[in-house]
Amino acid sequence: MRAVCLVSGGMDSLVSAATAVAAGRECAFVHVTYGQLTAARERRAFDAMCDFYRPYRRLVADVGYLAAIGGSALTDKSIAVPLSSESSVGAIHESPRAAASPSGVPVTYVPFRNAHLIAVATSLAEVEGAGEIYIGATQVDYSGYPDCRREFFDAMERAIRLGTKPDTRIRIVTPVINMGKGEIVREGLRLKAPFELSWSCYTNSDLACGRCESCTLRLKGFAEAGMKDPIPYA
Amino acid sequence: MRAVCLVSGGMDSLVSAATAVAAGRECAFVHVTYGQLTAARERRAFDAMCDFYRPYRRLVADVGYLAAIGGSALTDKSIAVPLSSESSVGAIHESPRAAASPSGVPVTYVPFRNAHLIAVATSLAEVEGAGEIYIGATQVDYSGYPDCRREFFDAMERAIRLGTKPDTRIRIVTPVINMGKGEIVREGLRLKAPFELSWSCYTNSDLACGRCESCTLRLKGFAEAGMKDPIPYA
Repeated sequence: MRAVCLVSGGMDSLVSAATAVAAGRECAFVHVTYGQLTAARERRAFDAMCDFYRPYRRLVADVGYLAAIGGSALTDKSIAVPLSSESSVGAIHESPRAAASPSGVPVTYVPFRNAHLIAVATSLAEVEGAGEIYIGATQVDYSGYPDCRREFFDAMERAIRLGTKPDTRIRIVTPVINMGKGEIVREGLRLKAPFELSWSCYTNSDLACGRCESCTLRLKGFAEAGMKDPIPYA
Repeated sequence: MRAVCLVSGGMDSLVSAATAVAAGRECAFVHVTYGQLTAARERRAFDAMCDFYRPYRRLVADVGYLAAIGGSALTDKSIAVPLSSESSVGAIHESPRAAASPSGVPVTYVPFRNAHLIAVATSLAEVEGAGEIYIGATQVDYSGYPDCRREFFDAMERAIRLGTKPDTRIRIVTPVINMGKGEIVREGLRLKAPFELSWSCYTNSDLACGRCESCTLRLKGFAEAGMKDPIPYA
């Protein structure tokens, strides 16, 4: 069976895609870029993962209008990406969700971003005859993002059933959605996922900062799994 | 209240936007372009409608990856846009749905296109604090497009509720969804919508062809309303 894998270049989508490959799916890899600060670095990580897994098709979709819309620290330079007050790599005792809006949603939330990702993957899946979309969303460590919850993907699955051809059947597969970061690292190791090719940092593109929400959670995951993260930190 | 109006440049979205304006909404107009054959002409129609209605914000979102994905006569040059076998303007006795896929969906269906439109509008609405999205979909004359049905928009509304911030409330308003083309023309006339600024043709950008599905339906609408269509035909 064919599957469309959404691959951001981060560790969660890497493990999600590795799951599809391990399940024997014939995969198309899709990367969605949206004018985020580290877009070029994430694209490089995507390309490296494609070279590693050799999907039968790769597609890069530019939804740069999300940067024009703004409203997120990842796309709007006037909103700071929150950093841990600890400068040491691996400071995990401070919640990365400290800098949230009054609603409890982190300022790094990109409004309705995952709907754009699912829409791109669905259009491709319908044309390619793929029956599954793999996305590396997780509602455990990142539960502050509303569009990372399984109930959101259930609603999108229903919209897909109603909004595509009658004979189109597409499931949204979320292999890591209920895994903590440590479990994701362990699952990736089991699947021999090339973590050294992935990139998670929200702010830097050369050496990971080790202090943004994303780095903090990544380091927490490797620490929980008792592994050294193979990527370089500042 | 603020509203985001999806404005393609065609007559249905024109009447939809006119409804929002008539309801006293403070409007942002959004145009989504996707590499379709007549993209530049539709963009020109959008700009003209903005100059006419003066929305407080205008946004053009390029989802050109839909052309890379293909699978539609509107974005893939290897799939012909079906034309009526009658060359006379206003030939309405032949169904514009004659050239459909085995599933009954016209070859001009762009896979899951309206989900991309709703995603763009939702991201903007969430940032702008808009409570409504207006879209000119109609399930009467175009019922062959699955993503034009109200049940699809109901599913997307649910996905929006689950995939945005807890305090975000966005309704999808579909003012013309149950109107035939004749009713849409009559409603537009009632609202003094500038039909002369709109463009519907799928194939031409100078003089409308009068023969594609879209022209055929448009002409049927004006004929039903007993009005002459103000745009020029070949």
